[in-house]
Amino acid sequence: MDHAALPQSFTITLPAWVADELAHVPDELPSPEERMALAHRLADRNWREGTGGPFAAVVAERETGRIVSVGVNAVLASGVSSAHAEIVALGLAQARAGAWDLGGDGMPAHELVVNARPCVQCYGATLWSGVRSLVIGVDGPEVEAITTFDEGPMVGDWVEQFAARGIAVTRDLLHDEGVAVLSAYRRAVDAGQVTVYNARTGA
Amino acid sequence: MDHAALPQSFTITLPAWVADELAHVPDELPSPEERMALAHRLADRNWREGTGGPFAAVVAERETGRIVSVGVNAVLASGVSSAHAEIVALGLAQARAGAWDLGGDGMPAHELVVNARPCVQCYGATLWSGVRSLVIGVDGPEVEAITTFDEGPMVGDWVEQFAARGIAVTRDLLHDEGVAVLSAYRRAVDAGQVTVYNARTGA
Repeated sequence: MDHAALPQSFTITLPAWVADELAHVPDELPSPEERMALAHRLADRNWREGTGGPFAAVVAERETGRIVSVGVNAVLASGVSSAHAEIVALGLAQARAGAWDLGGDGMPAHELVVNARPCVQCYGATLWSGVRSLVIGVDGPEVEAITTFDEGPMVGDWVEQFAARGIAVTRDLLHDEGVAVLSAYRRAVDAGQVTVYNARTGA
Repeated sequence: MDHAALPQSFTITLPAWVADELAHVPDELPSPEERMALAHRLADRNWREGTGGPFAAVVAERETGRIVSVGVNAVLASGVSSAHAEIVALGLAQARAGAWDLGGDGMPAHELVVNARPCVQCYGATLWSGVRSLVIGVDGPEVEAITTFDEGPMVGDWVEQFAARGIAVTRDLLHDEGVAVLSAYRRAVDAGQVTVYNARTGA
């Protein structure tokens, strides 16, 4: 096989508009509500910019609120189907930390803040990332009902499974604001104004 | 916030030794057994080279056997916890195809061949990738028993959930050869010869 013909690497990059959105955000966001409000803003802008779905994530040091990374759904922007907001934010945080385990010895506790409950892929990605807490805006069934995205089959005791691995879960933070973002996206889909991905429902 | 301080992108790259391993592999591997044998060889070499766990994946065009990409677990090599073999192979295949959906209109049917059942993260990644079939060497509970890796909480009807989304699953292909690879890894772990990751089991 001519190995040179095969791709050797792929790169996931934040959309350029994220820099603009972060320009006036302080280095530290002490409260979980501030971190969630940032996630909601990024999620809303992401679909409006055409760079992906209405999903965003923030990785912060839990105690200080220092922002380590942000991610948005970059499936459309990067051309990679796994590039959900959580995968992007966690990968960027690990790149910054120089460590694949954000919960390693000597590291501060890291928190992942997401506007919508992780899909089954990102459920696993969160489990393996080393974060010690997860904060969710809108729960999975409600995300599916509003957006029509398939979030995949999750075990019923997913919160307990997180807890068993040392990850605390907070739900429904700034829930109504999150629903408003997702609902605006849905209205645009219904009006034929956005590209929908992740829509396979049979052979 | 000084946005320039935040990472903008991360890259996942195949280990350099993969080129050597592929040098004598033909461009097409017509049978699923040949594709699985390649996955087993890559998985075995990956842990021996110290680039990650004993896991590998191959993306092929299902009918012709044309190899589109290969992936190995690159958590240690890339410093990114999501860089499991399936994420790597699917991301490289999508980069090569220039499309985030390997099942898009006009594309040939793609198959993902893995030496070990996808963990819960890669279960989702496979669901969203556009592949039309998944071929597995060793099933999840046996992978966990041999390697002690945590594969995460999977729904009981995971095969049916794949089928409902148009993805056919084949299990236990070259099973015993796969068990031999995983068992060799386990013996090396027990002998203190390898770095173990994905080991968090509580706060």
